[in-house]
Amino acid sequence: MPTHKLTTVQSQAALSELNTGLPTPWEIIDGKLAKAFKFKDFQQAFGFMTMCALYAERQDHHPEWSNVYNKVAVQLITHDVSGLSEKDFDLAKKMESFAALHKA
Amino acid sequence: MPTHKLTTVQSQAALSELNTGLPTPWEIIDGKLAKAFKFKDFQQAFGFMTMCALYAERQDHHPEWSNVYNKVAVQLITHDVSGLSEKDFDLAKKMESFAALHKA
Repeated sequence: MPTHKLTTVQSQAALSELNTGLPTPWEIIDGKLAKAFKFKDFQQAFGFMTMCALYAERQDHHPEWSNVYNKVAVQLITHDVSGLSEKDFDLAKKMESFAALHKA
Repeated sequence: MPTHKLTTVQSQAALSELNTGLPTPWEIIDGKLAKAFKFKDFQQAFGFMTMCALYAERQDHHPEWSNVYNKVAVQLITHDVSGLSEKDFDLAKKMESFAALHKA
């Protein structure tokens, strides 16, 4: 199934749905779906990253991210469509579920 | 053994030693020991990161780094001494040996 670029309205709707029930929301910054995660320590942070990496590789859709000790800053975009797609929101949801398995 | 902040002269000497024989050198940028690594793909990049993470955790000295698909940008600093220490150069050397195990 081809990947489609979401319109601004579609992205905002997907963002609202994604953020429902989340204490710390995702934001759309410079056209990318972004969130800064904070964990107890490096072990928890990199454990989270490892779960994300395995999922991302399997989906062939990878995050842009940086890590400083217990912090992981994530930015998602779909380069094939030069914008946000369902793949970004799917990955964001998975990241939330993986983050929930690690100590904040 | 306590960690000491290296003087500028010591850092430059350590940098020269680190870069000996390396096709792509490390640099000191904004007081941090920095290098951008490029691998064949995400699998190789994250494999490299995983080896670095295990070593960093064991040494309790962690990199600041970002990853976009096959690229890993690394910045090393020793926050305890607000500057560069032997730990940074040790980690950089290990990172080089781990990078050599992954496809560029």
